[in-house]
Amino acid sequence: MLLGAIEAGGTKMVLCIGDEEQHILEREVIPTTTPEETTGKILAFFQGKGIRALGIGSFGPLDLNRRSKTYGYITTTPKTLWRNFPLLPRLREALRVPVEIDTDVNAAALSEYALGAAQGFNSCLYVTVGTGIGGGLIAEGNLVHGLVHPEFGHMLLRVSSEDPMPDGVCPYHKGCLEGLASGPAIEARWAKKASLLPENHPAWILEAEYLAQMCANAIFCISPECIVLGGGVMRQVHLFPLVRARTAALLEGYVQHPRILSGMDDYIVPPALGENSGIVGGLLLAKRAFQGV
Amino acid sequence: MLLGAIEAGGTKMVLCIGDEEQHILEREVIPTTTPEETTGKILAFFQGKGIRALGIGSFGPLDLNRRSKTYGYITTTPKTLWRNFPLLPRLREALRVPVEIDTDVNAAALSEYALGAAQGFNSCLYVTVGTGIGGGLIAEGNLVHGLVHPEFGHMLLRVSSEDPMPDGVCPYHKGCLEGLASGPAIEARWAKKASLLPENHPAWILEAEYLAQMCANAIFCISPECIVLGGGVMRQVHLFPLVRARTAALLEGYVQHPRILSGMDDYIVPPALGENSGIVGGLLLAKRAFQGV
Repeated sequence: MLLGAIEAGGTKMVLCIGDEEQHILEREVIPTTTPEETTGKILAFFQGKGIRALGIGSFGPLDLNRRSKTYGYITTTPKTLWRNFPLLPRLREALRVPVEIDTDVNAAALSEYALGAAQGFNSCLYVTVGTGIGGGLIAEGNLVHGLVHPEFGHMLLRVSSEDPMPDGVCPYHKGCLEGLASGPAIEARWAKKASLLPENHPAWILEAEYLAQMCANAIFCISPECIVLGGGVMRQVHLFPLVRARTAALLEGYVQHPRILSGMDDYIVPPALGENSGIVGGLLLAKRAFQGV
Repeated sequence: MLLGAIEAGGTKMVLCIGDEEQHILEREVIPTTTPEETTGKILAFFQGKGIRALGIGSFGPLDLNRRSKTYGYITTTPKTLWRNFPLLPRLREALRVPVEIDTDVNAAALSEYALGAAQGFNSCLYVTVGTGIGGGLIAEGNLVHGLVHPEFGHMLLRVSSEDPMPDGVCPYHKGCLEGLASGPAIEARWAKKASLLPENHPAWILEAEYLAQMCANAIFCISPECIVLGGGVMRQVHLFPLVRARTAALLEGYVQHPRILSGMDDYIVPPALGENSGIVGGLLLAKRAFQGV
């Protein structure tokens, strides 16, 4: 049985056809332009391929309330062309297969939970640190949505007194996670792309501080069994030991669990599926759509 | 059918017998002293009353991992006499009925979700603001546990520049929620019991600031459909409009949902079950224990 998956990002979309075991059989990357042009390319990719269901992990915010008239729409995105675009209904009507949609980060959380770093646990927090920062959450085995959906990027942080750019770059909030710790924030602060900063640059101590505040607050509020940090910034793998050490320092020994107290090498981790977390999550969503879960 | 419930606090325990519809038929309050003396009184209350199951909402931390050998134990509590006390197994063996245990705040979240302020929703965050601060969480219809369980009290906040006691009173963390905003924090800061401070005292602006930071971060991280604020400090009902207004200010219009944008009068709310949230939650846990859920 063939399944389709889309990892729908603000700048590009990854399209893929896979099987029930999440093997990727065909893949294409297209730029995200206008909704009409982009959906045209999506349909051209999938039509006639015999997929039985489609899973979408998408940028947002999305309406994920199944009882809502606008279920599966992209809602108040700053990408104005896509605002209120009926992504799920449009693709379902054109492809005539069941379609399941969730946030891009929930799709990644799902794949890390089912097949990756959080396999065997009952919960997983996946946070991508890249152009933006977003978090997807599985708790008690379920993808969490709630009123809108978990978001994480705009968590209010304590700004470090050593930060030369204390307000951050978020147009909404001074001193939020995304404004202080996303790729563009690093670049704006140090006038250099994050990937070009050497490992001993003070940028990384500051970055670890902010990501550790996020991890500590997530542990206090959600108590996930595993925190997966993905996205472009986390390709700087030297960040992981810094984030773990600073998280432990912020917790001050309060959370007495061996997986926290033993250094967190298997607790705050990179995605086991690497770059494929999102698209494999899409295939898992497609499987759910087919099964009518 | 009669069911038993315990709201087990660090200073007192509320014991109750109720029916399947959560009507409270008999209630007794006992002081929390040594584990032996206290369990003796608990057993004396319940024995011979014909309860078919028992539900416990307890202070913690608790081991809530059903696969653990110490499931239902109180674990690393600062109340050293109770450390590693097998609360659930002890009562189950003595009373010979099914017993279900959860945190006191998860029990309260459960009752507000099933019967109270969050009825009809799929999620609920209950935070008690009193001698301590703790949070219980229902997401996608399930009580959330995770690695340990959600905690909330020690969320790291931004300390206000107007705070005359910026470190707070928490022995673990400088500037955490419980250290800055619990009843003892208010009393230590203003040298007066919270209940004696007039409504126009600056204490309340500061209190609302900290509780609003917690609400904003909960909205960003969990996106609950309802936030219930209970506990002794929240009996100062004039706090609610202050917390709602300050939460809206911190969100800066980012979360575009009518229940957030319309002032949050039905979003950040007091417990509909008032003082009974915890014990009614215990009766609901007892019902689950009986049903083997």
